[in-house]
Amino acid sequence: MPFAQRLTQVETSAIRELFKLLGKPGIISFAGGFPDSAMFDVDGIRAASEAALREEPGAALQYGATEGYQPLREQLSAFMTAKGVQGLAPEQLIVTTGSQQALDLLGKTLIDPGDKVIVEGPTFLATIQCFRLYGADLVSAPIDAHGVQVDQLEQLIEQHAPKLVYLIPTFGNPSGATLSLERRKRILELAVKHRTVIVEDDPYGDLYFGEAPPPSLLALSSEVPGSRDWLVHCGSLSKVLAPGLRVGWLIAPPELLAHATMCKQFSDAHTSTFAQATAAQYLKAGRMPATLARVREVYARRAQAMGDALRSELGDAIDFVQPQGGLFVWARLTGAGGAVADGRELARRAIEQGVAFVPGTPFFCAQPDHATLRLSFATADVEKIREGIARLGQALQTAPAPQEA
Amino acid sequence: MPFAQRLTQVETSAIRELFKLLGKPGIISFAGGFPDSAMFDVDGIRAASEAALREEPGAALQYGATEGYQPLREQLSAFMTAKGVQGLAPEQLIVTTGSQQALDLLGKTLIDPGDKVIVEGPTFLATIQCFRLYGADLVSAPIDAHGVQVDQLEQLIEQHAPKLVYLIPTFGNPSGATLSLERRKRILELAVKHRTVIVEDDPYGDLYFGEAPPPSLLALSSEVPGSRDWLVHCGSLSKVLAPGLRVGWLIAPPELLAHATMCKQFSDAHTSTFAQATAAQYLKAGRMPATLARVREVYARRAQAMGDALRSELGDAIDFVQPQGGLFVWARLTGAGGAVADGRELARRAIEQGVAFVPGTPFFCAQPDHATLRLSFATADVEKIREGIARLGQALQTAPAPQEA
Repeated sequence: MPFAQRLTQVETSAIRELFKLLGKPGIISFAGGFPDSAMFDVDGIRAASEAALREEPGAALQYGATEGYQPLREQLSAFMTAKGVQGLAPEQLIVTTGSQQALDLLGKTLIDPGDKVIVEGPTFLATIQCFRLYGADLVSAPIDAHGVQVDQLEQLIEQHAPKLVYLIPTFGNPSGATLSLERRKRILELAVKHRTVIVEDDPYGDLYFGEAPPPSLLALSSEVPGSRDWLVHCGSLSKVLAPGLRVGWLIAPPELLAHATMCKQFSDAHTSTFAQATAAQYLKAGRMPATLARVREVYARRAQAMGDALRSELGDAIDFVQPQGGLFVWARLTGAGGAVADGRELARRAIEQGVAFVPGTPFFCAQPDHATLRLSFATADVEKIREGIARLGQALQTAPAPQEA
Repeated sequence: MPFAQRLTQVETSAIRELFKLLGKPGIISFAGGFPDSAMFDVDGIRAASEAALREEPGAALQYGATEGYQPLREQLSAFMTAKGVQGLAPEQLIVTTGSQQALDLLGKTLIDPGDKVIVEGPTFLATIQCFRLYGADLVSAPIDAHGVQVDQLEQLIEQHAPKLVYLIPTFGNPSGATLSLERRKRILELAVKHRTVIVEDDPYGDLYFGEAPPPSLLALSSEVPGSRDWLVHCGSLSKVLAPGLRVGWLIAPPELLAHATMCKQFSDAHTSTFAQATAAQYLKAGRMPATLARVREVYARRAQAMGDALRSELGDAIDFVQPQGGLFVWARLTGAGGAVADGRELARRAIEQGVAFVPGTPFFCAQPDHATLRLSFATADVEKIREGIARLGQALQTAPAPQEA
């Protein structure tokens, strides 16, 4: 059976192979990219779902508008307004089936085969694959602890005239990095100057541990005239409420939003109205602030425990910035004292010791830094984190396993 | 902002313009393609949703496998087995976000720009647009009251070597036609002989009014050796339970299913686990047979009322086959006695008289028959149907509205 050419652009085996090993009994996993299901507000979601079926059963179970269920669009618009976004009417966002679908719709709406797209190096793995399925030629923009390096980004924009620049400015996946306020403003200026679409993917921005991060690019866009015309924002309830609802949203300039809506119509018609009505009732009930406060507090404790354990167990063999939010520690093996310096090799050894994480290599669309690794602190409790990192320390000391012939 | 080339393939204005008029007060609408929300089993869905959140809150709200929530795959496999499909393991189907997403995944997995795809003339409008977004060059295969004409289909397959043939064999949308048993077997033989993928889209097969229709192509495939290797089946709970869950499924040969799963991973990660767990609990509770019986009985009465009214109000100015299932009457204006013979003209006049339907023209990918129209009998009760068809009779008699300059 002859398949479409686009399938040859994508390679998914690296992480799939690793995930197969996670079923091994007793494994402590730092490999996931998901929130802890023990923290879901099940009572709140049950109450919201009941309210949806009681107050509006027809609408909650019938076909709905491709743009989204209007009461949810209104709640999401208010949610974003409360985070400093100005002048956002409900009609300026569409509901998507998770923010993954927002990425897919951007690919479908904007990317022709061969088009250049700039992403951070490293970036979200599923973005790389999603855009490559539309034939994008990805270009990697380097980052540091303060997010993407803007001077280099501008050079890359001038060199490649990309269809879009994709960024996770706040608590990036996998980097954990947060773009500084000054860089945020410069990026908005770049968008206007070079007439370049900037996509801000922001699933983690609400998961901060201490002070709130700088305002989103979307919130800041009111300070940079013309920037809103080039700015796309993807949001999601997955990390803050529950991934299983598959409720995300896409905010974009009107023409782009209209085209994305048309593409959505033929992708899945609309996002589950049952899930949308449930999410709308949840937000309306006002439970989100307490949920966020609880989740932040638990993740903050786990992030601290992981950072402390990494420093005490791995010492100068590992280098990382203590995360201020999000789900991930992004670390780099230094090779100090002759320890393992390749994340892929350490991942293999770690599985033997009963701990799993994702090596950093697949998160780069080009020029991978093989010394990197991503550790999620979200789903294991503090005791398990300490035990898991101790095992990681063991793995670092272990002699390499003999290679099979 | 430069958009992707693929957007130039699609035109959505015809039906959108019509649907804007549906908000007019007092309109009786036969234009929809959806079930009657008054018949949703809200109590059953509420109980199923509560069971999902009580028994498995973590799984129902967390990320899930792209292939689908395993208990739902098991229930759907049993549901299909009860309808005569042999040897269907849960692993041979994936859950999709409505069957619209199954079409999108087939497009993504199989269609390169310029590829030929054969569809029925007329066929489901969103299939035309969905495949065109992947650059498909659509070829129209003629149908009659017994579905697609197989001799002509074989000629078209030989002439065009299509990537796939897309059929709605049972109570087609918009045609209402059902492929005869003999033609079903011949199509399975054609698939093997010409090594051609056949897609069977089957959202309406359970909505029969009298005798059950012939078995699905999928159920018959066990009688035609080798045909299962070329057969794809799309199913959906939208028309029989509730569209708002967005639960459909895709059954395909293993390699195709694996590629479609990979494409789904980057389209929306997975279908709402909340909706999937609710659907699984609903099927497990055994409520579907009673729900189907109730829905069939109500739609049968409405279909009969519409057929009777059309005959008495429009007489020989309209020609149609009385539907034996599904949601639609597909009719043709004969022009007898000098009456309107163009479905688009009648649609405009009908709105003036307070009744809406969809003209048949946009359902053809080529060589449209402008005399056709689609009338849904699903959402209006018998009284409204009689009143609406009486208005349609008025519209047929009305002098043409003066053209605006």
